[in-house]
Amino acid sequence: MIVLGIDPGIAIVGYAIVREKNSKFQVLEYGCITTSSKSSLPDRISYIYDELSAIINEFEPDDFVIEELFFNKNIKTAITVAQARGSQILAAQHHNLPIYEYTPLQIKQAVTGYGRADKIQVQETIKNILSLSEIPKPDDAADALAICICHLFTNRFKELYRIK
Amino acid sequence: MIVLGIDPGIAIVGYAIVREKNSKFQVLEYGCITTSSKSSLPDRISYIYDELSAIINEFEPDDFVIEELFFNKNIKTAITVAQARGSQILAAQHHNLPIYEYTPLQIKQAVTGYGRADKIQVQETIKNILSLSEIPKPDDAADALAICICHLFTNRFKELYRIK
Repeated sequence: MIVLGIDPGIAIVGYAIVREKNSKFQVLEYGCITTSSKSSLPDRISYIYDELSAIINEFEPDDFVIEELFFNKNIKTAITVAQARGSQILAAQHHNLPIYEYTPLQIKQAVTGYGRADKIQVQETIKNILSLSEIPKPDDAADALAICICHLFTNRFKELYRIK
Repeated sequence: MIVLGIDPGIAIVGYAIVREKNSKFQVLEYGCITTSSKSSLPDRISYIYDELSAIINEFEPDDFVIEELFFNKNIKTAITVAQARGSQILAAQHHNLPIYEYTPLQIKQAVTGYGRADKIQVQETIKNILSLSEIPKPDDAADALAICICHLFTNRFKELYRIK
């Protein structure tokens, strides 16, 4: 089972590819797709779509997992990021990938077992679970790894209790 | 010059195709793409993308014109509609169409010459400009026609004053 995790964004999209085999996790890749605010919105979202399509073609993930958007501050930013997220979901749809969504709280809870864990605690836990030598950088890529772990843990739990 | 105008949405996407030839406007088509709230977001946005791609293939517009999003109330709705708008823009990008965006105020102003015109006044003006026998229905399709007119009027103005 290979999972592609996405931390949605417009300037920076975090992504991570994690494989689970014989109950062991292996990080295949993680990083960021970045776009410049000098480019037009159409150019930025189609660039993200293309980059994501290339990643999907390369790693052939089984599941596509993306964080849900929550905004309570800047609605202008929310609308821009949401448009980009639409193109990220479309890239998965066009590759017939099953799409899973988790809230930031669900991710935190699944990774650390504690819904109020702070960013550093989540990142430390990710580092330990994935046996990485250091905390993954930048935050967006670390978040994408956390989303993968959340999904894989959730799957394990469901299998254990035979939940569909 | 053929213009495809879009009133962005998720449950209802208004669209209109208007041709300008020898300074005369001809409505080639208008209508709505609708999706059910019972479907998943990925299914809804990829359905809209597919329908829009089919419309672009059929009418081969020169320009793609879409209303900008403005929300001040429900941020959850804003985020959903924005994700759908991302897929609408991507459909245009994937057909190499130039994309133009106008605010609701710009559209109202261009169509009626009066920024505070109400919905009915805008629709009456659209009906007269396009020599339609009745006010186009539903509102989303009428809005899409208004976006086309806004773009064509803006183009005329720019040509007149040689603005690029």
